[in-house]
Amino acid sequence: MDASRLPAIDFGNLVAGVLEGSGMEPRRLRGELAARFRDAHAEVEARRKTGEAGFFDLPRDRPLAARTRRLADTSARRCDALVVIGIGGSALGAAALRDALLPPSWNEPDAAARGHAPSLHILDNPDPDTVSALLARLNPSRTLFNVVSKSGTTTETMSLFLVVWRWLEDTLGAGKAKTRFLFTTSPERGTLRQLATRWDIPALPIPDAVGGRFSVLSPAGLLPAAAAGIDIEAVLAGAGAMARRCSTPDLARNPAGTLATLLHAADTEMGASVQVFMPYSDRLRGFAYWVRQLWAESLGKALDRAGRRVETGPTPLPAFGAADQHSILQLLMEGPRDKVVVFLGREAPGEDVAIPALFPDSPGLAYLGGHTLFGLLDRERRATAEALRRAGRMNMTVMVGRVDAHSAGALFMLFQIAVVYAGALYGVDPLDQPGVELGKTLTRGLMGGSGHEVPSIPPPDPRWRV
Amino acid sequence: MDASRLPAIDFGNLVAGVLEGSGMEPRRLRGELAARFRDAHAEVEARRKTGEAGFFDLPRDRPLAARTRRLADTSARRCDALVVIGIGGSALGAAALRDALLPPSWNEPDAAARGHAPSLHILDNPDPDTVSALLARLNPSRTLFNVVSKSGTTTETMSLFLVVWRWLEDTLGAGKAKTRFLFTTSPERGTLRQLATRWDIPALPIPDAVGGRFSVLSPAGLLPAAAAGIDIEAVLAGAGAMARRCSTPDLARNPAGTLATLLHAADTEMGASVQVFMPYSDRLRGFAYWVRQLWAESLGKALDRAGRRVETGPTPLPAFGAADQHSILQLLMEGPRDKVVVFLGREAPGEDVAIPALFPDSPGLAYLGGHTLFGLLDRERRATAEALRRAGRMNMTVMVGRVDAHSAGALFMLFQIAVVYAGALYGVDPLDQPGVELGKTLTRGLMGGSGHEVPSIPPPDPRWRV
Repeated sequence: MDASRLPAIDFGNLVAGVLEGSGMEPRRLRGELAARFRDAHAEVEARRKTGEAGFFDLPRDRPLAARTRRLADTSARRCDALVVIGIGGSALGAAALRDALLPPSWNEPDAAARGHAPSLHILDNPDPDTVSALLARLNPSRTLFNVVSKSGTTTETMSLFLVVWRWLEDTLGAGKAKTRFLFTTSPERGTLRQLATRWDIPALPIPDAVGGRFSVLSPAGLLPAAAAGIDIEAVLAGAGAMARRCSTPDLARNPAGTLATLLHAADTEMGASVQVFMPYSDRLRGFAYWVRQLWAESLGKALDRAGRRVETGPTPLPAFGAADQHSILQLLMEGPRDKVVVFLGREAPGEDVAIPALFPDSPGLAYLGGHTLFGLLDRERRATAEALRRAGRMNMTVMVGRVDAHSAGALFMLFQIAVVYAGALYGVDPLDQPGVELGKTLTRGLMGGSGHEVPSIPPPDPRWRV
Repeated sequence: MDASRLPAIDFGNLVAGVLEGSGMEPRRLRGELAARFRDAHAEVEARRKTGEAGFFDLPRDRPLAARTRRLADTSARRCDALVVIGIGGSALGAAALRDALLPPSWNEPDAAARGHAPSLHILDNPDPDTVSALLARLNPSRTLFNVVSKSGTTTETMSLFLVVWRWLEDTLGAGKAKTRFLFTTSPERGTLRQLATRWDIPALPIPDAVGGRFSVLSPAGLLPAAAAGIDIEAVLAGAGAMARRCSTPDLARNPAGTLATLLHAADTEMGASVQVFMPYSDRLRGFAYWVRQLWAESLGKALDRAGRRVETGPTPLPAFGAADQHSILQLLMEGPRDKVVVFLGREAPGEDVAIPALFPDSPGLAYLGGHTLFGLLDRERRATAEALRRAGRMNMTVMVGRVDAHSAGALFMLFQIAVVYAGALYGVDPLDQPGVELGKTLTRGLMGGSGHEVPSIPPPDPRWRV
């Protein structure tokens, strides 16, 4: 696929001489930053070769993609509704693919409008209100539940699995629940894999070397996508094309390297610890939340790789243009200079909506007529980027091009590669997440899990209550 | 209404001696911080008396509530679908009320399930994909459009208004469009008010002294809510009860004062510039986004009230428990110590969902059986707060109690009053938003608006592109 169709990055608005008042010196881009990236690139290459960052290999794993496609075609597509039960990386990738590649009204009751592909739902939180409402609208005999958990023991996911299993037994009859499940889990370990074996439930693997937040291009993201008719082969092709584009140690030609190096420098040298990811397309909303986990969980680390205490990592902030100009732009323009904005822009959709020229004598309206909604939305993006530039507020833009399966895959790979480069630049391991263990242990203790002591928690104190 | 039913704040986990390793000294709470708050309270009281912060008066404005109720009962409830067209404060309040007080499946096609009240939709972005998909599913003769813009000239809102007007003229016939609109706008000024007068379109006011992000308790939020059958009088009653509770200059007895003073101190003295608002209830998701605009747009200011350059203001970060434990908790636990977390907890819902005790021989599952989904969700909240406390990461909890109309109104008022106290503490004007003007001017210039020059924007430079 033509490399010129891949997402590209325009970072002029953080370069000195373009950005008002400050910015990165161009010489440093070619010199010091390029050298810094070469070192990071080498470190990442070494980890790739030992097989640690398994997501790099997913675009080439044709057998796994074929298995995913086969299970989708034989099972997952043959239902009225597919419900993903997962959390974190086991849900956010599917949600990003859904937002990007399915029409907004996909879950409308008119199944014919989606070519009789299943509606797609994501249960990602053990909230009884949400769960009850969803189950009440599903036909159990026409619904499949795709439980996604690499470990097979994720507390929230397994709780929802138990609830749904009981609901299916109650509504369909004893012994029937197992016929309504598909699992996506570790190839060998964990409770889901054991249950799959015991009850003969179809189960796809998340390869061992692919962590949760890096799993969108594995069956974790691609099975639900394929079930809804998304061209997962095109997603993988786009990802593969971007991976090839991002393989060079030359910063000037590596988009992921550029993204990582500039955002790392913006944080560690220029104080931009808050990194706003702001797509100007409702279709990329899910993508921004996927980026949030990827960025925060990979880079927010207490210890560096030498075991020194660093407590580092930027704070990703999803925002949505143009609506969030009306929530956070005031802060971006006038507040502390601790932020950098990464806009995501796209080219015009195939079908746009005209803004008619009505009420020509109303001064507040006349200038709008003759334009289109996308024309307005994209001008707002450019105007906002320019306003920030004039205010000396760093920003860059990822131009996505068309929003399709190929570019979606390319975007996922761009950011995944960027975050492992960023890990090397920050000196941390981007692949682990030790900080979440204490909360899990305390939760199990509060739930009375055997082997977990009931945690000692300071009781509420009326002095600290109002 | 009994004050003990109002939301309350537990802030032990940022007090020294409770928080591991650091925290605020209790003596300072009673001494210096209490005195600081007295000054802020006096400043806010003075502005109230001059009528500047009009939202304080909304709970007592019975005529306006009655007008809203009347228009809802005679018009807005008498349709199959109500579409709010607004952005920022003109949409986020309605979305928060919807999420909190309507069942998740409100917009399902079974109108009987909602007592034949209208479905509720919010168009808050000029995105053609979203707009086309929504219009395709609506029956124009059974839909009403509530256009909400205090100025009557909001670019995105008026563009969507024009699109919908043309759609209605095309589908219903010439002259019919005006029969499908309700406006919420300035009492006297702006394009919407002019159109309302010209075309005899019902129009409710947003009082002049009530700014957009403070307008949820005005018809901007309450007309859509009333149309959907929400008890807006109870919302206002809860808001009024909280306003009375938050009227005292005594920090120890003023929840809004406590929220403002502690978050301001956390930011300006302890470096917690990122303020995470994290409800553990899907029903409070919209509320977290409403808080984001309120907090960011009120406090992110370049100049203080004396005209000195301060470039201050915290960065609000919405997050949702338990799902976002799987995206940002790693960063909260191990990353930079620049954050404070404000949890929102609630009491158990009337109807909970049992987690059945199945698969007793699966170690990963046995401990879950016999619990409920809310029981898990709330333990996760407590576990996460405790994990952060042990890691020395500041946090506090707003206990909401029942999620109902009364507590929703109380929450809105709690945060609105807190943010104006915070404005006084930061020394800025929380009621304006000058930083958004440049972007609006540039947008109009790019759209070819008369009186607006085409802005000069640096062209893309291939040196800064990859």
